[in-house]
Amino acid sequence: MSTLNYGIAVFPSKEIQDIANSYRKRYDPRYNKIPPHITLKERFEATPDEIKDITSELDRIAAETNPFDIEIKKVSSFSPVTNTVYLKVEPNDTLTSLNQKMNEGKFPVSQQFAFVPHITISQDLSEDEHSDVYGSMRMLEFDLQDHIDRFQLLYQLEDGSWTVYETFKLGRN
Amino acid sequence: MSTLNYGIAVFPSKEIQDIANSYRKRYDPRYNKIPPHITLKERFEATPDEIKDITSELDRIAAETNPFDIEIKKVSSFSPVTNTVYLKVEPNDTLTSLNQKMNEGKFPVSQQFAFVPHITISQDLSEDEHSDVYGSMRMLEFDLQDHIDRFQLLYQLEDGSWTVYETFKLGRN
Repeated sequence: MSTLNYGIAVFPSKEIQDIANSYRKRYDPRYNKIPPHITLKERFEATPDEIKDITSELDRIAAETNPFDIEIKKVSSFSPVTNTVYLKVEPNDTLTSLNQKMNEGKFPVSQQFAFVPHITISQDLSEDEHSDVYGSMRMLEFDLQDHIDRFQLLYQLEDGSWTVYETFKLGRN
Repeated sequence: MSTLNYGIAVFPSKEIQDIANSYRKRYDPRYNKIPPHITLKERFEATPDEIKDITSELDRIAAETNPFDIEIKKVSSFSPVTNTVYLKVEPNDTLTSLNQKMNEGKFPVSQQFAFVPHITISQDLSEDEHSDVYGSMRMLEFDLQDHIDRFQLLYQLEDGSWTVYETFKLGRN
């Protein structure tokens, strides 16, 4: 059986997604490929058998993780590493712990950089475009909170877009 | 609390989604708003309290429904009612029963027409464009099967795109 590309993400509230999309539609060429999200685990390949194991692990991880709150106050950029501008999710132990658990044991390691929880609002721009966009957004202040009670396993289609495969609710329901 | 727009859909296999997208990217202006899908329940509004009740109902419906197979052999059109061209999902008792259960009891009725399971590949075209597209696709023959073991509850963002809220797995797991 062939492999698919999978990823794991949190979709924040509609309010936060709408705010992110108001920027993404202008500044993110991948705007249409996936709703606004916090990546918990970067893209990885898995066979049907492997994803079955991983799904069991995700059931376990979800069950042992309590729902939690996140906060967004400002915009930041990964420049000069990449020209990605993002809504910065304030440091959060639960997000960090989820990310770590999804890159050990039965999970393939699929992470290039240290984990920085974020919601991308601009990427793949030229150096000049990035400077303009980040320059105009770096002064923005937000006061956004959200209560996170689930994460999602997704797979990628040929056109690069993502389809949700399964929802994992946090805590013992 | 404010209401959101919700919908309920089945996402078929990546293979079928990729085939649908090869047409959608050319002929469906809503291509980027949601992955290829079979709608089980048309868009409806619900408050947070209402969606909690509906989610419980969906848990019950999913548990009492066994996974099932679908088949796609041809393209059809809803013309002259609408100019929607679709991959016709062969008549299927389980899909019909799911659709019926999602339009009775605690569910708002959100259906304008008789239920015809389908995967849209073209819509919102002019009369002439529709004739061209449907004329070139009506002779296509497919031999696609898929095993359906879940459905998804989605909500709509301001830009018209859809985010998955929850996955419901069929049968008692």
